[in-house]
Amino acid sequence: MLANSEKTMDKVVALCKNRGFVYPGSEIYGGLANTWDYGPLGVEFKNNVKRAWWKKFVQECPYNVGLDSAILMNPQTWVASGHVGGFSDPLMDCKDCKTRHRADQLIEDQTGVAPNGWSDEQMSQYIKENGVCCPNCGGKNFTDIRKFNLMFKTFQGVTEDAKNEIYLRPETAQGIFVNFANIQRTTRKKLPFGVAQVGKSFRNEITPGNFTFRTREFEQMELEFFCAPGTDLEWFAYWKDTCKNWLLSLGIKEENIKLRDHDPEELSHYSKGTTDIEFMFPFGWGELWGIADRTDFDLTQHQNTSGKSLEYFDQQTGERFVPYVVEPSLGADRVALAFLCEAYDEEQLDEKDTRIVMHLHPALAPFKAAVLPLSKKLSEPAGEVYAQLAKKFMVDYDDAGSIGKRYRRQDEIGTPFCITYDFESQEDGCVTVRDRDTMAQERIAIADLERYIEEKLAF
Amino acid sequence: MLANSEKTMDKVVALCKNRGFVYPGSEIYGGLANTWDYGPLGVEFKNNVKRAWWKKFVQECPYNVGLDSAILMNPQTWVASGHVGGFSDPLMDCKDCKTRHRADQLIEDQTGVAPNGWSDEQMSQYIKENGVCCPNCGGKNFTDIRKFNLMFKTFQGVTEDAKNEIYLRPETAQGIFVNFANIQRTTRKKLPFGVAQVGKSFRNEITPGNFTFRTREFEQMELEFFCAPGTDLEWFAYWKDTCKNWLLSLGIKEENIKLRDHDPEELSHYSKGTTDIEFMFPFGWGELWGIADRTDFDLTQHQNTSGKSLEYFDQQTGERFVPYVVEPSLGADRVALAFLCEAYDEEQLDEKDTRIVMHLHPALAPFKAAVLPLSKKLSEPAGEVYAQLAKKFMVDYDDAGSIGKRYRRQDEIGTPFCITYDFESQEDGCVTVRDRDTMAQERIAIADLERYIEEKLAF
Repeated sequence: MLANSEKTMDKVVALCKNRGFVYPGSEIYGGLANTWDYGPLGVEFKNNVKRAWWKKFVQECPYNVGLDSAILMNPQTWVASGHVGGFSDPLMDCKDCKTRHRADQLIEDQTGVAPNGWSDEQMSQYIKENGVCCPNCGGKNFTDIRKFNLMFKTFQGVTEDAKNEIYLRPETAQGIFVNFANIQRTTRKKLPFGVAQVGKSFRNEITPGNFTFRTREFEQMELEFFCAPGTDLEWFAYWKDTCKNWLLSLGIKEENIKLRDHDPEELSHYSKGTTDIEFMFPFGWGELWGIADRTDFDLTQHQNTSGKSLEYFDQQTGERFVPYVVEPSLGADRVALAFLCEAYDEEQLDEKDTRIVMHLHPALAPFKAAVLPLSKKLSEPAGEVYAQLAKKFMVDYDDAGSIGKRYRRQDEIGTPFCITYDFESQEDGCVTVRDRDTMAQERIAIADLERYIEEKLAF
Repeated sequence: MLANSEKTMDKVVALCKNRGFVYPGSEIYGGLANTWDYGPLGVEFKNNVKRAWWKKFVQECPYNVGLDSAILMNPQTWVASGHVGGFSDPLMDCKDCKTRHRADQLIEDQTGVAPNGWSDEQMSQYIKENGVCCPNCGGKNFTDIRKFNLMFKTFQGVTEDAKNEIYLRPETAQGIFVNFANIQRTTRKKLPFGVAQVGKSFRNEITPGNFTFRTREFEQMELEFFCAPGTDLEWFAYWKDTCKNWLLSLGIKEENIKLRDHDPEELSHYSKGTTDIEFMFPFGWGELWGIADRTDFDLTQHQNTSGKSLEYFDQQTGERFVPYVVEPSLGADRVALAFLCEAYDEEQLDEKDTRIVMHLHPALAPFKAAVLPLSKKLSEPAGEVYAQLAKKFMVDYDDAGSIGKRYRRQDEIGTPFCITYDFESQEDGCVTVRDRDTMAQERIAIADLERYIEEKLAF
C-alpha cells in the first residue's frame, strides 16, 4: 500500500487525464484558467458522489427535502446576503513587476500569521513592518489594498447598464433562504426541517489551483437545516457527526480527516460556531465541509430586505419566530477529489509486478462491474449478460487483450467486480466474479448477479 | 378524463406552485424575468427525467458515453462554433412607444409567413410593404434592424476588459466537440460512438415565456453521435426512432407528438436533415427535441480554429477522416413540462366528486410510494416500513387526515402507490397497496414491497 507521502497529486491527475475521469477544460484552445471537464468515467463517478449525498441527506432523512433553484437570481438577494457589500478579496499590485496578489495570502505564506478578521489598514501596516515582499520579483513596492468583488457579473436583457446587471450565484445557499416560506407552505413541514441543494456556483478567485480543489466554477452540496432557537447547538453537533460518518461510510479513513473548530476571531459575527472538516490531500490539509451555526442571520437579512415575513408559526406553543439555521456546506468537486486521492493505490504484487488500483466504494465506482468474455467467440452470450446488468447498473464490456490485462485496466478505474464469461458458463449458467480489492474469485449464477452487486452497493 | 382543450397551463402551473414542483425564482424580491426554481417535488421529478434519459442514452446504450464539461469555456470555442458571429436576434425598436421587438417574430405573428433564412434587409422590406405594426402601440415607425447576440457575457480575472471577456455557454454541445479527441483516446471507442451530456445553458432571450418552456437559464440533454460519412443518414433515422420511443415509453401519447422535418430553406447550410419532435402543449405545439445531421461541420470548424487534428483513424480501412455527427438535442425543462402536462388529469369519480391526478410514469414520479399509517398509534411499525423503503426509493410518509384525503394528496403529486399500514399489518406482515391510476387495492407482504415497486419502475 502506498503511504500518504508517496501519493502525489501528479499521480492522481495523470490517472484522471489518461483514463477519462477529468480533462483540462477547452484543452484544444489552450484551456481556460483552471477549468476542468469530467470525462466519461468522471461524470459517472461525480454523479455517484452527488447521489450518495442525496441518499443520506434527503432520501433517507425524514427531516429534509430537496431544491434546485436557478443560478441567476434577483440581485437584491446578494444585497441581503452581504455578497454585494462584503464578498471580496483584498488585492495589491506590485508596482515593480505589475503582478497582482492577495494581501492576506502574502502575509500567511511569508510569516505564517493568519490575518483573520484584520482590516485592510492592519494588513498594509503588517506587510510594511514585517518586510513581506512580492513573491514574483522580491520587491516591496505595493499599491494600497483594494477590494475586488468575487461575484461574476453579467447583464440580462438588451442593454448593458446597471439596471440589467445580475450575478452568477457565488453559493447555492441563498436559493434555499429565499424559498424558505414557499417550501414550508407547500410541504407543510414543521420545524426542525432541512432543505438540501446540489448545484453550480461561481467565484472569480484570483488564484484557483490544485487541480479541481479550487476552481472558479464549482459545484456545491448544501444543506440549510432550520430549527427553533435554543436547539441549534444540539443540531450543530448532530450534523457534524452525520457529515463525518458519511465520509467514513464511503471509504475515507479516519486518520485522513480532522474537524477544525474556528477560533472566536475567525467566526463571522453572527455565527455561534463553525467547524471545518478537512481532508489530508497530497498537497496538505484542505477544507471539504464547512458546518456552521448561522443563527437567524440569513432569514432575518432577507426578511428585512424583502419586507416579506420569513417567520415560522409554532402551532404547539403559539409562538412566531425567525428560525435558526445550521448549514453543512460541502464542495462536490472537492469531496470527489478526496475520494479519488483516498482510493488511489499502487500495490506491489510480487518482485516485478505492481498494480495501480482505485479502491473506490462500489457505490461511487464509475462502473459497478465489467463483463469480460474469455474469448471473442463468447461475445454473444457475454453480451446478453452485459445487456441484462446494464438495465440496472453502469457496467463496462471489455474483450480486448488477456484477462489479466483487462483486470488491471478495471482495477485502475475502480471497477469493483470483473465478471468473466467462459466456455463453461453456457453449460452451468455461472460466471467467475473477481473482487477488485482481494483479487479473490468466486463462481456465481448469472441469475444471482444483479442481487450480488446490489448488496455490495449498500452503505 | 380531461380533453386536451380543458388542460390549461393555468391548471398545471397552479398545481406546480401549490404542491412544490416549481416556484417563481427569487419570488420574495419580485422574481427575476422568467426564472423558476424546482421545489422539493420538482427536483426529484426533474432528476428522474434526467436519469431516465441517461439510462437509455448512456447506461443501456453500448455506443454512448457521458461527459460533464464546464459552463465557462475558452472564448475561441464560440468563434469556431459560429456563436460569436451569428448567434443573434434581429431586433427593432418602435420609435413611438420605445418598445423592442424581434423582427422575425412580428412578421410571423402578424402575417403567418415564416421568414426562415431571410436577411435583415428582406425582413425590413417585408415589414414596410405588408404593414406590420408595433404590437404595443400600433405604430409603424421602427428603427433599422440590429443584431443582438444572445450569449451572456462576463469577465474572469480582475479587470473588465475584452481580454478577460468570456461567455456562459449557450449550448452544451460544444463541450463535447472540443473533447472529442480526449474522449476517443481515453475510451478507445471505435466509430460509431456517441457522447451524451446533461447541463445548464444560458441564452439572453428577448421574450422568454410559457412557464418553464422558454427561459434564459435552462438545462439541456444533448447527444453528439459520431459516425463515418455515408452512414450518417442511417443513424439520423435510428436516433429519430429512439428519441420518439423514449417519449412513448414514459407515457407521452402518440397523438400528442409530431415529427416535423425542416424544409430545405429552414436547414442550416451544413445540415443534411433536421427533424423536430414537437409536443402538443396547452399553449400549442412546441419543440422538445431537435435531431440534426450536422455532417462534419462542427469538428471541422474546431479543427480549423484550434489547429489541432480532430480526425479519426479507421484501423480497418486505414483511412483518416473527420467524423460526421448526428445530434439529438433535448430541453430538459421542456420535456419535464411535457410530462407534467401529459400526466395532468381531472377525473369525475361520481356526481359530486372529482380528483386531480398526475398519471406520471412511476420512474418519473417524485415519490415512488407513500406510507400511510391507518392510525397514529401505528406510527412506529409504519415508520419502519418507511425507513426500509427509503433506503431504496424516494418515499413519502403521511399521517395527517383521513386515508381518503391522503390518497387524494398523493394522486395530485403523482405517487403511484399508497401503502396503508393497518391494525392487521402487525399480525399478518402485510399492507394494503392502492394503485394511483386504477384505484385498485391489493394486500402485499411487507417483505415483497421493495421488489413490487422495483418492477413497476421498469421502462
